[in-house]
Amino acid sequence: MERNIARLRARLDGLGVTLRPHLKTSKSVDAARRVMNTPAGPATVSTLLEAEQFVAAGVRDIIYAVGIAPSKLPQVLALRAQGADIAVVLDTVEQAEAVALASRQAGSRIPALIEIDCDGHRSGVRPDDKQRLLDIGRALASGAELRGVLTHAGGSYSARGAEALRKCAEDERRSVVDAAAILREAGLACPVLSVGSTPTAHSATDLTGVTEVRAGVFVFFDLVMAGVGVCQVDDIALSVLATVIGHQREKGWILVDAGWMALSQDRGTRKQDVDQGYGVVCDITGQPCADLVVADANQEHGIITVRPGSGGVLPDLAIGDRVRILPNHACATGAQHRSYHVVRGTSDQVEAEWPRFGGWQ
Amino acid sequence: MERNIARLRARLDGLGVTLRPHLKTSKSVDAARRVMNTPAGPATVSTLLEAEQFVAAGVRDIIYAVGIAPSKLPQVLALRAQGADIAVVLDTVEQAEAVALASRQAGSRIPALIEIDCDGHRSGVRPDDKQRLLDIGRALASGAELRGVLTHAGGSYSARGAEALRKCAEDERRSVVDAAAILREAGLACPVLSVGSTPTAHSATDLTGVTEVRAGVFVFFDLVMAGVGVCQVDDIALSVLATVIGHQREKGWILVDAGWMALSQDRGTRKQDVDQGYGVVCDITGQPCADLVVADANQEHGIITVRPGSGGVLPDLAIGDRVRILPNHACATGAQHRSYHVVRGTSDQVEAEWPRFGGWQ
Repeated sequence: MERNIARLRARLDGLGVTLRPHLKTSKSVDAARRVMNTPAGPATVSTLLEAEQFVAAGVRDIIYAVGIAPSKLPQVLALRAQGADIAVVLDTVEQAEAVALASRQAGSRIPALIEIDCDGHRSGVRPDDKQRLLDIGRALASGAELRGVLTHAGGSYSARGAEALRKCAEDERRSVVDAAAILREAGLACPVLSVGSTPTAHSATDLTGVTEVRAGVFVFFDLVMAGVGVCQVDDIALSVLATVIGHQREKGWILVDAGWMALSQDRGTRKQDVDQGYGVVCDITGQPCADLVVADANQEHGIITVRPGSGGVLPDLAIGDRVRILPNHACATGAQHRSYHVVRGTSDQVEAEWPRFGGWQ
Repeated sequence: MERNIARLRARLDGLGVTLRPHLKTSKSVDAARRVMNTPAGPATVSTLLEAEQFVAAGVRDIIYAVGIAPSKLPQVLALRAQGADIAVVLDTVEQAEAVALASRQAGSRIPALIEIDCDGHRSGVRPDDKQRLLDIGRALASGAELRGVLTHAGGSYSARGAEALRKCAEDERRSVVDAAAILREAGLACPVLSVGSTPTAHSATDLTGVTEVRAGVFVFFDLVMAGVGVCQVDDIALSVLATVIGHQREKGWILVDAGWMALSQDRGTRKQDVDQGYGVVCDITGQPCADLVVADANQEHGIITVRPGSGGVLPDLAIGDRVRILPNHACATGAQHRSYHVVRGTSDQVEAEWPRFGGWQ
């Protein structure tokens, strides 16, 4: 984890942009303090529950990076009243009018970033939709604060190869630069140009015009990121410790007490070049066992097999033996647990237990 | 929920067997008290964390129905020392020897059920594997207690049609009856014959020889169970309340603030006749919107569309409108949340908040 953080920080320092880490991956104050530039941030969150938890821990500069629902504005205002600079994200005139109205009523200008759709992946205004950008910007100006523009290259998760990833990063950069130019030409201030995803953060070679990069999963990495090519399996800093509880020898199955409740149901490697099932099986030191994966998972049972077609050999694991399972998606697997047990290198010694919060709201 | 509980209870009363509900679905003391026959049980759990929580709430008769790892026996003994009858499940001689040894060392006979594999789905001893059954039974006899035999027709989740489901239920019944006969013929007592899954519990017509039925998801039901045919969509007693946060109108998308963190990543209907995506969208009263599903989900974003190929029409939902989303798999969706907000019928009034525990160990 420390190596992963240092790697991205060095990269972004070289590109002259600020890291605004997405704390949704760890949902842990202890992990957040290691990944943020300062104990006060900047940071990104995906729920107001996260914002509340991190503000309580002293974080003061947060973007809540999921489109704002008007019903959540009182929570945003309450957090701002505690002295935290919470910015919201939106992509419609209706939201901008609601944010401006709430700002006027509270006598507090809520900062908002206009979400830009750089790749058709999800939400956001197309960067060439001048009318909608200006309508939103002007609606915000009537009470709220136009803080800037923000995008997320969600499509980069399915990009393959360094060239495709660089193109995603450039599309991401260009989308906010273009949108900001439209706003500025109309006389609207647009100080923040925020981009980010772990694949593009690790692939961008030029971030001219961008002020900050958001990324989350880089802190732990996972098998999906290894499949995308922005880390090695050995960089993955999160695993689930499981115990062998049975065999079905004639089928080549080893059963462990970690099913999808422990691993999550994320199957993000299914469409990648190497399907890692529900996770790659490692020995207790974290060394991957050749071609051994969790091929299927029930709620509390995982079925370990040799990866289909690999020609690998099932190891002789006995009842009670322990294994570590690397996750497809660190955000999803972490969310199944209440704390992290921190180990260093190949040691089995738990140095610390870091609580994490979860749930959804 | 009350109707679902009454329905299964009446059914099993008619068949002359005891309901031992699986509490892994709700992981809630409040829900458990409504589903158990008495406040002391009987009950089934899938982790020792659940056992600890339910023992603390007064449950005294529990089967921990995942194959026991020897390292967990001290926890089992600690719970038994509190006066709770915790039985374990196993399917190997190694586990039986470990349970017998731990029992002798503690001076407390740990009860164990031999897991039977009725359909090749997961774990368990084949019901005709006389040698392994007797080896396990005799290993247990040297210190522990052979409580009985137990099976779970996991294959019933992919059965289609009433006839196929009845056959799953009969295979389940026959497997424990046959295994118990082998043990009894060898002079080993086998008082408990435990079967169960929600599809078979709702399909069995004859449970001669069986003493108890375990089922879990029947309490809430879900879209997978509706697809299997053991409930109607209207019986589903669990939903996720979400808010509209955006549109991509040219794509026919409505965005809500419920992604897989709120809904889970369960896609259990994918291989059923009707693929429900990440869930069926209902209005605030719980009435399903025709052919409206969560077609895709990111961590905190759900994308609602008309079900592909249905010819349905996208409703005019505005920013801030709220919807309820019915889950594919109640166990998985519940696990993403820290409590249940209890409403009655079509009311939006929250009558109570029931905490649930989660995490995995």
